Amino acid sequence: MKDYAKLWVGYTPKKNNRDCSALSRIVMNGASENDRIVKNAVSELKDGLKAMLDIVPDVTFGMAGTDIKVTKGADIQDREEYSITLNTDSLVIDGKSASGILYAVFDILRTVACEKSIEKVYAVKKTVRPSNPLRMLNHWDNMDGSIERGYSGKSFFYVDNEIVIDERTKDYARLIASVGINAVVINNVNVKDAASYMITDRYFDKLAQLGEIFAGYGIGLYMCLNYASTIEIGGLDSADPLDEKVIGWWKEKMAEVFAKIPTLKGFLVKADSEGRPGPFTYGRTQADGANMLADIVKEYGAIIIWRCFVYNCKQDWRDKKTDRARAGYDNFIPMDGDYHDNVILQIKNGPMDFQIREPISPLLGGLKKTNQMLEVQIAQEYTGQQIDVCYLIPEFKEILGFKTYCSENDDTVADIISGKTFNSRYSGIAAVTNTGNDLNWTGNYLAGANLFGFGRLAFETELSSEQIAEEFVRMTITQDDAAVKAIMDILLRSREVYERYTCPLGIGWMVTPATHYGCSVDGYEYDRWGTYHRADHLGIGVDRTDKGTGYALLYNEPNASMYNDPEKCPDELVLFFHHLPYTHVLHSGKTVIQHIYDTHFEGYAEAKEMAATWDSLKDKLDAEIYENVRERFERQLVNAREWCDQVNSYFFRKSGIPDEKGREIW
Amino acid sequence: MKDYAKLWVGYTPKKNNRDCSALSRIVMNGASENDRIVKNAVSELKDGLKAMLDIVPDVTFGMAGTDIKVTKGADIQDREEYSITLNTDSLVIDGKSASGILYAVFDILRTVACEKSIEKVYAVKKTVRPSNPLRMLNHWDNMDGSIERGYSGKSFFYVDNEIVIDERTKDYARLIASVGINAVVINNVNVKDAASYMITDRYFDKLAQLGEIFAGYGIGLYMCLNYASTIEIGGLDSADPLDEKVIGWWKEKMAEVFAKIPTLKGFLVKADSEGRPGPFTYGRTQADGANMLADIVKEYGAIIIWRCFVYNCKQDWRDKKTDRARAGYDNFIPMDGDYHDNVILQIKNGPMDFQIREPISPLLGGLKKTNQMLEVQIAQEYTGQQIDVCYLIPEFKEILGFKTYCSENDDTVADIISGKTFNSRYSGIAAVTNTGNDLNWTGNYLAGANLFGFGRLAFETELSSEQIAEEFVRMTITQDDAAVKAIMDILLRSREVYERYTCPLGIGWMVTPATHYGCSVDGYEYDRWGTYHRADHLGIGVDRTDKGTGYALLYNEPNASMYNDPEKCPDELVLFFHHLPYTHVLHSGKTVIQHIYDTHFEGYAEAKEMAATWDSLKDKLDAEIYENVRERFERQLVNAREWCDQVNSYFFRKSGIPDEKGREIW
Repeated sequence: MKDYAKLWVGYTPKKNNRDCSALSRIVMNGASENDRIVKNAVSELKDGLKAMLDIVPDVTFGMAGTDIKVTKGADIQDREEYSITLNTDSLVIDGKSASGILYAVFDILRTVACEKSIEKVYAVKKTVRPSNPLRMLNHWDNMDGSIERGYSGKSFFYVDNEIVIDERTKDYARLIASVGINAVVINNVNVKDAASYMITDRYFDKLAQLGEIFAGYGIGLYMCLNYASTIEIGGLDSADPLDEKVIGWWKEKMAEVFAKIPTLKGFLVKADSEGRPGPFTYGRTQADGANMLADIVKEYGAIIIWRCFVYNCKQDWRDKKTDRARAGYDNFIPMDGDYHDNVILQIKNGPMDFQIREPISPLLGGLKKTNQMLEVQIAQEYTGQQIDVCYLIPEFKEILGFKTYCSENDDTVADIISGKTFNSRYSGIAAVTNTGNDLNWTGNYLAGANLFGFGRLAFETELSSEQIAEEFVRMTITQDDAAVKAIMDILLRSREVYERYTCPLGIGWMVTPATHYGCSVDGYEYDRWGTYHRADHLGIGVDRTDKGTGYALLYNEPNASMYNDPEKCPDELVLFFHHLPYTHVLHSGKTVIQHIYDTHFEGYAEAKEMAATWDSLKDKLDAEIYENVRERFERQLVNAREWCDQVNSYFFRKSGIPDEKGREIW
Repeated sequence: MKDYAKLWVGYTPKKNNRDCSALSRIVMNGASENDRIVKNAVSELKDGLKAMLDIVPDVTFGMAGTDIKVTKGADIQDREEYSITLNTDSLVIDGKSASGILYAVFDILRTVACEKSIEKVYAVKKTVRPSNPLRMLNHWDNMDGSIERGYSGKSFFYVDNEIVIDERTKDYARLIASVGINAVVINNVNVKDAASYMITDRYFDKLAQLGEIFAGYGIGLYMCLNYASTIEIGGLDSADPLDEKVIGWWKEKMAEVFAKIPTLKGFLVKADSEGRPGPFTYGRTQADGANMLADIVKEYGAIIIWRCFVYNCKQDWRDKKTDRARAGYDNFIPMDGDYHDNVILQIKNGPMDFQIREPISPLLGGLKKTNQMLEVQIAQEYTGQQIDVCYLIPEFKEILGFKTYCSENDDTVADIISGKTFNSRYSGIAAVTNTGNDLNWTGNYLAGANLFGFGRLAFETELSSEQIAEEFVRMTITQDDAAVKAIMDILLRSREVYERYTCPLGIGWMVTPATHYGCSVDGYEYDRWGTYHRADHLGIGVDRTDKGTGYALLYNEPNASMYNDPEKCPDELVLFFHHLPYTHVLHSGKTVIQHIYDTHFEGYAEAKEMAATWDSLKDKLDAEIYENVRERFERQLVNAREWCDQVNSYFFRKSGIPDEKGREIW
């Protein structure tokens, strides 16, 4: 059986840097050579340089330093900072902890793997402080081996309700640590069946082992909790967070859990959402629920991450007053300041659910006294499911760069989640991951760029989409300059192309219900999920202005005024905020309907161009990688054509307005 | 555990006929008292009269007669005919076979159970000759216990890939024999998994036992075949019907099968349809496939029933030339006359697939030299799934009464399938059954009326929908005259009500994909199934005239001209045949759009009336029956409201034309 790919930690011989004498002597300062992370760093360095350059470095250790005690988010950033100094015949790594040293090693290895000159890259001392304290992956893996919204095979953590630990577990830790991930939630936020028993004897031994492996790469172990555990496994009749019996049960349970899994760093909880139990069931607030658990785990130095994905998923489609987009804000803003300091609210980037285009959640910039973590999704649930290529880093850059106007300075989303804006106790960024047990980890080989890129961006938010794309391509696909350029071009345009042939102008949701792959313009229009386009003969879009649901006003000024006014609202979000006639003229100078026709024809044409570009690279690429992506492009083109034709036909049939360019619409 | 309902063979004490002396002495002529069917008839008669009237009849036997040898369909009808003659102190049954006697017994028991006077009903000698030779139920039961399109629990034939034979098996035979069913196909037409092995040693013993039980009630056993058996279980590399190896394998297999299951009467085959293998795979005709099998089973007196449900299920929705409605005709008419005389083509009532309103299949009246059987569906796949009440007998009456103009006289569908029109060798009517292991057999108790009614109608096509409804209600629910009338009213209007709140004017298919329950106007509009409404801003409907797909011209005149002309086409089918503007005025005087609005509001309102009627009967009905139907009405109203509002909103939003009556449309 063929082995799984090593991706960017699969070191292969390189041309450059073979004569770089500095690589022969590496000095590591800041942590003990006996630390397990340092040991992993040393063997990673030695294995990598040997494989890539046939160099066996002499590694020596300077001062061990004193590890920084972590009591808040910035402490994590301080600890994980590193510097690399180039001397004539040595490279000196200054870490403030073993993790810093590990990240420095991966920095050096990346430089070599990208065929960049060590002399040039480190000509000036390079210092990197991680942009975010928590850089986390969320696995939606179920213990039966299935993965909710997984498009890359089955879980590599679980088979038949057992935890599997093998060589791949360690390689997974290497892969993600090498791009700066320092936290992993190992099970689905929808905790049920066997997963409810993860906090029992049945799984403690394996979880402890897993935690040790992660800890060796500076990765904290997190689990999702079933909020109703007191009932489902505790035998109580309540999960009321203010009930003394409930609190007592959790205290005892947590004492047991942290004793058995000493590396455990905390829990992620989805409560009162899409059928999950939660504090609302007992007339309590979300803060009541989160604080109860947080107070209990505090003595173990652990945190509670509480998801803000709370909305009414049984909306009546006839009801035009209720607005799902408001739900997160309305549910969580009133309690701002009530959450204890080891609680973090985890906030999806948009107010809906990972559509290809959404405004930024108004909770980001709305909450001012609460620890916040941004949640993005690299599992391509709504963005092509790792069949269609969709490089998401440009989107994440936009999200992170969004000015919320929540303070005079440092008001971007990146600032908020870095902890800078509000001097947060804890903060960071999480991605719902796109991995599975496919041999290439992410289904579509190019989807690996999102896993790689998410980590890189979380660690160094100032990196550009281009830099990250180039690193990914050079480290995992090819060093051929023309091919690198061509693949980068595919990656960099892919998100916009996907947006063009799917949902126009920020409207979203025109997807096949349940599976979320493929077009169904009315698929959710008469359903209970709060996801409507409200298209009729004359126009389309949701009025979220002060005359509609008022959602636009949840933003700080001047954003609120901008979104509230169709003349100021950016084109790409105009139908999210406004119900407009098809004849409305956009900033682009096109009418809404002509924009729909044009972008859909163009998006499909561009998808064909991308596929043709990939085909042209056949002779330059590894045969398996080539074929993996080629086969997916084949499916992407079928999908893109359906989207293009269905959306155009739908709106032509509904509006009766012909395409100005007379193209074929059915 | 509560026992399953005995429905119309659960005899309970009756008031009338207690003094009827004729019931004390029953004379049976025409078959031997040692015949197993006669024995069942006698015990049925004695049990029934004892339970209902406390009468223990003296049963005597006259001449045994000579059983008629069956070589063609009419022979079956001759054999199964019976007469009942009332003498002063006896009832004389004249059968021409044991089956005739059995049916006469059920006739008498039905009269008693309905509280009708024996003296009056049989005042004049009553002779009944079954309207159709074959009166068949098709079970879509899978061997894992699931039922395709089953809405009444699991299979009572199969559990975990084993055949189950118990008391219920016999009661099932009693239930269906009592309404005149004489043939049952026991497995799903989509033959796969374990069902492919029904013609192997693994199941022969149980099948033989099952066949014996059926035979005791005059019911022939039929099975569905996997057309690719030669490959799937035979180890050959072909299923080409002209391949000698294939023919040889089937000859040997059939010799074995009929030796092991002597009661077996034949096979039903779905080939080349929806992914099933068939002769087309080998460039052969449907006749080649059917004849090959028919020739082989002929020596066992068996028949091959070949389904005509062959169409392209991978149509491109952009393709407006291909018309699924034409497929049956185009595939089967060219071979008319080529089918051997023990082949029957089984033809769905409409050209599409059991929508609430379709025209009659043009194969009925098109085929003139081929044995034909009509297929209807009492499993309410598209007609409310035994949640919504939908009494289908009025629809079946319309179908059977349809004049095809295929001959000077005797040209109705009923005439054709009775064998009269073309003096067919074999013919009849089959229903996809609605049964399962629910305690009441059919999910919704009122859905029992379709099982009961189908059998009654197949046996005596001249019965009215009212007569059948009354028999069902009196035999299974109540004798209270006011309640009988109220329930009959619910049943008799239910189909029209369902049609009103669902798919207007014959358009069909506005259902949730895959499940087929609930509304999704565009659910199949951009899909591959050939099921489109083609609605745009100006109009709706499929042009199947001479200017469109030409489907209308497949009918005999004057039907072809009628359907081809929107001014002559009946309103209820006008959108099936024509693409019309919303402003087109129907024969009713209403525009298409106003018809849509009116019928949907009315249909929902009428559903509420029916539910209210049922509620009003609470005190008069058995509590379990009442609650069973009440709970389903509750769900029906949710469904009806969604249909009403979604269809109206969809067309209002698309057409922009307001409701004349200003009712609320979202």
